[in-house]
Amino acid sequence: MSIQRLCIVGTGLIGGSLARALREAGECAEFVGFGRDKKHLQTAQDLGVIDRYSTDLATAVEGAEVVVLCVPVGAMDTMLEQLALCVVEDTIITDVGSVKTSVMQSAVNHLGESSARFVPCHPITGAETSGVATSRADLFRGRRVIMTPNDATSATAFGTVRAMWEAVDAEVTVMDAALHDEVLAATSHLPHVLAYTLVDALVRMDEHEDIFRYAAGGFADFTRIAASDPQMWHDICIANRDALLDVMAGFQRDLDELSTAIRATDSARILAIFSRAKAARDALND
Amino acid sequence: MSIQRLCIVGTGLIGGSLARALREAGECAEFVGFGRDKKHLQTAQDLGVIDRYSTDLATAVEGAEVVVLCVPVGAMDTMLEQLALCVVEDTIITDVGSVKTSVMQSAVNHLGESSARFVPCHPITGAETSGVATSRADLFRGRRVIMTPNDATSATAFGTVRAMWEAVDAEVTVMDAALHDEVLAATSHLPHVLAYTLVDALVRMDEHEDIFRYAAGGFADFTRIAASDPQMWHDICIANRDALLDVMAGFQRDLDELSTAIRATDSARILAIFSRAKAARDALND
Repeated sequence: MSIQRLCIVGTGLIGGSLARALREAGECAEFVGFGRDKKHLQTAQDLGVIDRYSTDLATAVEGAEVVVLCVPVGAMDTMLEQLALCVVEDTIITDVGSVKTSVMQSAVNHLGESSARFVPCHPITGAETSGVATSRADLFRGRRVIMTPNDATSATAFGTVRAMWEAVDAEVTVMDAALHDEVLAATSHLPHVLAYTLVDALVRMDEHEDIFRYAAGGFADFTRIAASDPQMWHDICIANRDALLDVMAGFQRDLDELSTAIRATDSARILAIFSRAKAARDALND
Repeated sequence: MSIQRLCIVGTGLIGGSLARALREAGECAEFVGFGRDKKHLQTAQDLGVIDRYSTDLATAVEGAEVVVLCVPVGAMDTMLEQLALCVVEDTIITDVGSVKTSVMQSAVNHLGESSARFVPCHPITGAETSGVATSRADLFRGRRVIMTPNDATSATAFGTVRAMWEAVDAEVTVMDAALHDEVLAATSHLPHVLAYTLVDALVRMDEHEDIFRYAAGGFADFTRIAASDPQMWHDICIANRDALLDVMAGFQRDLDELSTAIRATDSARILAIFSRAKAARDALND
């Protein structure tokens, strides 16, 4: 066993799946859950995801070599503030948040020098469900996990967390936190914002009943991500505000350009945009 | 047999699938193909989709009770102009175009009083492939076909075309052409425009290699429609320009509103937009 005791803070889909996967891989001897909702933690224990739990953070993290923060991005700052009061000097802390610059800043603010043992991670699973009941041991198999250490990150802590992700068959990539946030703003946060905005725009139209009745084919695929958890995506939009607003502004300019081309029947420009997009999309594995 | 001879103008995915479906249903005795590309027509004949073909329009439509226009929306006007020179008085003409007001206008312009026997239709299949090789007899089964006759449309012609779609197990809906174009602008044309614009925006970013490497999960679904045929979607954008520019402008306003809310950390407004969208998306069958 590489890890004797691991504490999962937030035993939902991601936290639960990580526990299941590490258990299946024989990488960790004991899993302790922390959360606010006792009933929810009991379910996780009944499912065999965690061995025991506590709603008291100090009790939950006691003796844990690794603490994994699997709470929504908007709760990371508060969790790190509370953790600072109860972790011991050699505890490794890591997270699974979709935004990395803001979480790293919270770690530095609250943990001070101990933030060297905070290892920021983002497993890209693309799962749209949530809750421990949907957790599964193979969630990370073949999926990318982006790790965004900085110059101060402890090599030992980094190595332990990297080995943890590799043990569950994830493909680890190391990247600068700011670049991570830009890339994810473009490929994940912007698409979610566009899907939410589109569906909401249709809801507010006079003919919205007809509109949803005749929505077909591509519409279902295009808007699937608008069924994602609103609170989670609210948190991400706020935590990655600057990078997201940048790509939103760029998108608005591009959409303006296309509107102008359509208004002017500028076929060459319309075809150039659509063809470049098709070529890039065709090249994407999916 | 309800129809003795049917001419398919444009034997691609839609035209080919309609021929296959009508043949399987025993609804039509003979299928004649028309197109510009002899090799392509020969393939359709070799596949058993059509019985014979001609690259001369007058020859192809001779003796056909029904002519189905399955050409791209941008080619409809020219086809109707040419058809006006060679169809006889009782020939029924119908189409499968994604835009209805502009096609109806072309029919009135070129066919004059005979436009009473032009029956505008739009089968909503959501298929992303193209070409006769991917055609199949069950493409329309359980799918909606929107018919947009006007006050001048002949009841007999309408009845024949309606029966044709019902014979291939499509669900026929009758709608005003202008409403059709508004609804499709919102549910189909706008999503395509957004998907093309997003993928093209990412292609033009400095980090575009990283961006496409880390695109995952929802991104593939969200951008799938950006792999659609650029020329076809160019034609649709031009043919449905007014309705499309309207929904694009509305979308831009809504996206501006969301940008403002994110910039101001207006959580209530962000959550209201995301939650309304999620509720509407959850209610959609897919």
